[in-house]
Amino acid sequence: MSLEARSCIFCKVITGETTASIVFEDDLSVAFLDHRPLFRGHCLLVPKDHFETLGELPAELVGPFFKNVQLLARAVELALEAEGSFVAMNNRVSQSVPHLHVHVVPRRKKDGLKGFFWPRNKYEGEAQVIAVQEAIQAAISTTKNKFDN
Amino acid sequence: MSLEARSCIFCKVITGETTASIVFEDDLSVAFLDHRPLFRGHCLLVPKDHFETLGELPAELVGPFFKNVQLLARAVELALEAEGSFVAMNNRVSQSVPHLHVHVVPRRKKDGLKGFFWPRNKYEGEAQVIAVQEAIQAAISTTKNKFDN
Repeated sequence: MSLEARSCIFCKVITGETTASIVFEDDLSVAFLDHRPLFRGHCLLVPKDHFETLGELPAELVGPFFKNVQLLARAVELALEAEGSFVAMNNRVSQSVPHLHVHVVPRRKKDGLKGFFWPRNKYEGEAQVIAVQEAIQAAISTTKNKFDN
Repeated sequence: MSLEARSCIFCKVITGETTASIVFEDDLSVAFLDHRPLFRGHCLLVPKDHFETLGELPAELVGPFFKNVQLLARAVELALEAEGSFVAMNNRVSQSVPHLHVHVVPRRKKDGLKGFFWPRNKYEGEAQVIAVQEAIQAAISTTKNKFDN
């Protein structure tokens, strides 16, 4: 176990050193109730191995891990009789624990979470749009080559 | 093409009927700039086939689709020289277009998006925690059986 994992609260949940209200577990991942939920039923799904962000999750784990995210989203909606769900992860910025965790939050219309995807902005003009578009296209090539993805 | 797909703005982006600033495309999915971004570089990744939510994405597409999400998150961080990223999807509630789309947003510390994951709440007591935990555990069994997942 790495030094990061040794001091990681989610790694401690996985080993059982710290208790959590676990709702799902398989070989790859564990899901448990967030102890300070946005709404009741707000869960976190974490891979058992210590990866800090989505970008660091090995390619062979992406499919199985997100199948579990999908399962959890369906189950949380069903269990909480929700009208929908919010599924999200913060990579580094706003990430409270540096161990990849996907939030699965049951949603209802007019549940008060209206401000969370605002304010929106506009591009300053077409030239700025194209510059950003081209920068991302170039970065996709770079990233594909780097990770052989 | 279904009736839903015929009137879907993202399906029109995919067919080329509506223009968008596309940054990535493969057999399965397309990514383009959100035209009213949280921050410059905010992209949306959509599957080419019309599925409304994460729960409806067929099991065999989950892995390839989220590998593209991972690729896009890495590329957006690189292209915008970001410190991190926010990767999220709204299922039904707060979902502006009823065609599954994953938001990939570049993040920086103190970028002003502080309010988006609040307010947090607390459970009313241990009994409520256990009731929610047990309801989700039961729903996971139901969901697994239903989708053979």
